[in-house]
Amino acid sequence: MQATIITIGDEILIGQIVDTNSAWMAQELNKIGVHVHEIMSISDDSDHIKSAFAKAESESDLVLITGGLGPTKDDVTKKTICEYFQDELVLNEQVLDHVTAIFEKYVKAPIVQMNKDQALVPSKAQIITNEYGTAPGMWLESNDTIFVSMPGVPFEMKNLMTNGVLPKVKSLGKLPFIYHRTILTAGQGESTIATRIEDWENSLPAQVKLAYLPSLGTVRLRLSSSGMDKSQVMKDVDHVVDQLYTIIDDIIVGEDTGDSMVQTVTQLLKEKEKTLAIAESCTGGKIASLITEIPGASQIFKGSTVTYATMSKVDVLQVNQGLIERDTVVSESVATAMALGVQQQFKSDYALATTGNAGPSKGDSDASIGTVYIGVATPSKSYALKFMMGNHRERVVQKSVNKALELLHKELLAIN
Amino acid sequence: MQATIITIGDEILIGQIVDTNSAWMAQELNKIGVHVHEIMSISDDSDHIKSAFAKAESESDLVLITGGLGPTKDDVTKKTICEYFQDELVLNEQVLDHVTAIFEKYVKAPIVQMNKDQALVPSKAQIITNEYGTAPGMWLESNDTIFVSMPGVPFEMKNLMTNGVLPKVKSLGKLPFIYHRTILTAGQGESTIATRIEDWENSLPAQVKLAYLPSLGTVRLRLSSSGMDKSQVMKDVDHVVDQLYTIIDDIIVGEDTGDSMVQTVTQLLKEKEKTLAIAESCTGGKIASLITEIPGASQIFKGSTVTYATMSKVDVLQVNQGLIERDTVVSESVATAMALGVQQQFKSDYALATTGNAGPSKGDSDASIGTVYIGVATPSKSYALKFMMGNHRERVVQKSVNKALELLHKELLAIN
Repeated sequence: MQATIITIGDEILIGQIVDTNSAWMAQELNKIGVHVHEIMSISDDSDHIKSAFAKAESESDLVLITGGLGPTKDDVTKKTICEYFQDELVLNEQVLDHVTAIFEKYVKAPIVQMNKDQALVPSKAQIITNEYGTAPGMWLESNDTIFVSMPGVPFEMKNLMTNGVLPKVKSLGKLPFIYHRTILTAGQGESTIATRIEDWENSLPAQVKLAYLPSLGTVRLRLSSSGMDKSQVMKDVDHVVDQLYTIIDDIIVGEDTGDSMVQTVTQLLKEKEKTLAIAESCTGGKIASLITEIPGASQIFKGSTVTYATMSKVDVLQVNQGLIERDTVVSESVATAMALGVQQQFKSDYALATTGNAGPSKGDSDASIGTVYIGVATPSKSYALKFMMGNHRERVVQKSVNKALELLHKELLAIN
Repeated sequence: MQATIITIGDEILIGQIVDTNSAWMAQELNKIGVHVHEIMSISDDSDHIKSAFAKAESESDLVLITGGLGPTKDDVTKKTICEYFQDELVLNEQVLDHVTAIFEKYVKAPIVQMNKDQALVPSKAQIITNEYGTAPGMWLESNDTIFVSMPGVPFEMKNLMTNGVLPKVKSLGKLPFIYHRTILTAGQGESTIATRIEDWENSLPAQVKLAYLPSLGTVRLRLSSSGMDKSQVMKDVDHVVDQLYTIIDDIIVGEDTGDSMVQTVTQLLKEKEKTLAIAESCTGGKIASLITEIPGASQIFKGSTVTYATMSKVDVLQVNQGLIERDTVVSESVATAMALGVQQQFKSDYALATTGNAGPSKGDSDASIGTVYIGVATPSKSYALKFMMGNHRERVVQKSVNKALELLHKELLAIN
């Protein structure tokens, strides 16, 4: 099954918002075995929408559409669906009840005709209830292609997808299993790696695809396959990954599971009933911010301190000033002292600390740009490691966040 | 001038990465008067790329392409460009020198043939030097359409755009001026607003477009126009915005300038030579993280503390435990005490504090989900305000971040 994702809205085409919906939808579709053929972002214009629909219909079995379903005049998706499907809008009582209930419960203002019109839907559409908003999801079919129209507000769309669209697509019939593994390497460029794994790459079975994803001073190697026999698909990919480990074991630093390293670490802390505190300098609160995005983080996360100014490390974290003068603020000893300081202050089992120079200017330290020390304190030991993270500010920060979580992950795995 | 943006790479279609390049490119194109007609994300597949090129050529004057230019086998953009333009690859000595220099300067590994092949470019292409990487930008023309191919690595693409592509597009001739103003409202839904401004909306001049952008409990109203006469375009939009202010003055809370509230605040602190510290509970480090993304933030940002566990507020911020017991942790008095505590600890001029319940569960507090107090400490006073931020975790956090920055902004503007 092939899908096209169409996002409708001028705000994407003028760069006012980043389209995060599509990536989320693509991930979820992949999980149930649907391959995304293309993603299109188009304007709130009837002709443009109709031509995109026609293209998508000719190329895909499933077309997921977001945006343009608000009650105001600038939103034309529903009217355009009627034109495309040669259909007309009819009042859906169930949707009207839902809209009325939302207004009674959440909205102070009286309901107006414009809101009631949200219950006008194409007569050929099956309705998927939008628990969090007034615009319903609409499921229509044209020849052999399914069209699903949803609002663009991310949490409304996600709810509709999870509880309505994805289960319905799955129920249509046996979908293949799509499997990816992404191996994270560090220390060598993609051409060097490609040369080292050339024989292996040339001998890959036809159904296994390899992609090189260079970023942040690392190269990720993604192996993908799909098929109806889940265990065979996994076996094919796992087998070549095993081979890969023997060829470039020296540069493999882990496997990429998207943003989920922070989830893995949070889950491990919960399981082992341990708590965490963090002292962030060059990462500026990014690690805390990632952890607190996870519901229930308060069970394991005591808190963190961002000591951006050098003196804050002394004033707040009780790092010895003499140590800073002797070793400078970007040093192994200061990173260790920060981890210990924050561990003590927040009374946590584990602690992480980052201190470094992310550039572009040198700041309070003489350390060259890209130098980062990551400190770790556990119930039984403390240490810090030095990393050179390149000379691009955002990348230095991102790499430091990843590395700190990776070090904590190793420590947590080592608990008996 | 109409543009199409094409991003090439399976990683977008499987949802492994979010396409942030397109929004940035669309913004920059808008600034120089180029209208983005469509954004397409397609796979690393020659046939798919060629059909996208053909579609874009028929609809646009400018086609910006990113991705698929690495040295490895999975990248097919360059080869496909040759097929589409009936061209062949030739060695470009200038690019070869550049690639060789990059290897000598930054790469430990010896240069291999695969790297040298980065200097093979279509004979019809004009080269735009990629200072940060080995894949050059390529500018080709087909009939009246310009194609520009760039690598997908964001900082390489941005550099090529800023220093090569955008100036070159601008130099082609007089482009129109595109102007947007986005008015931020709070407190009423889009249908209520639409009803209130109906007469005004119906009388808008044809060249001024209105869009409703509901999000995070707010509705943004975007007014857009474009034309060759910059002052007339601005006058048209400014005039209707002035009218709008008189109609819904009670719900307008500001104008949206993207993410730049944090930049505005940082800049103001620099100008006034004041420093800031933050105590974050429900915002979990998000405010600190935003501020430290701005180069030079260390001049004004002393640091922050994330006190996620209730006891951390006592242990770390010296909030009186009796106060917490009397008023609960989500209260006006605790938010004020947090702001004062972190101001004192970090020795800052200003301080912000957030404490609230973002949900989904109630955590350490009895406050209903969505209740947030924001504390403010200035050199001369301290206070906290209560807000109800709804019942969706991410949205509560985002709204709290925005509101805290807004309160600080007001205080900084009040300095003589």
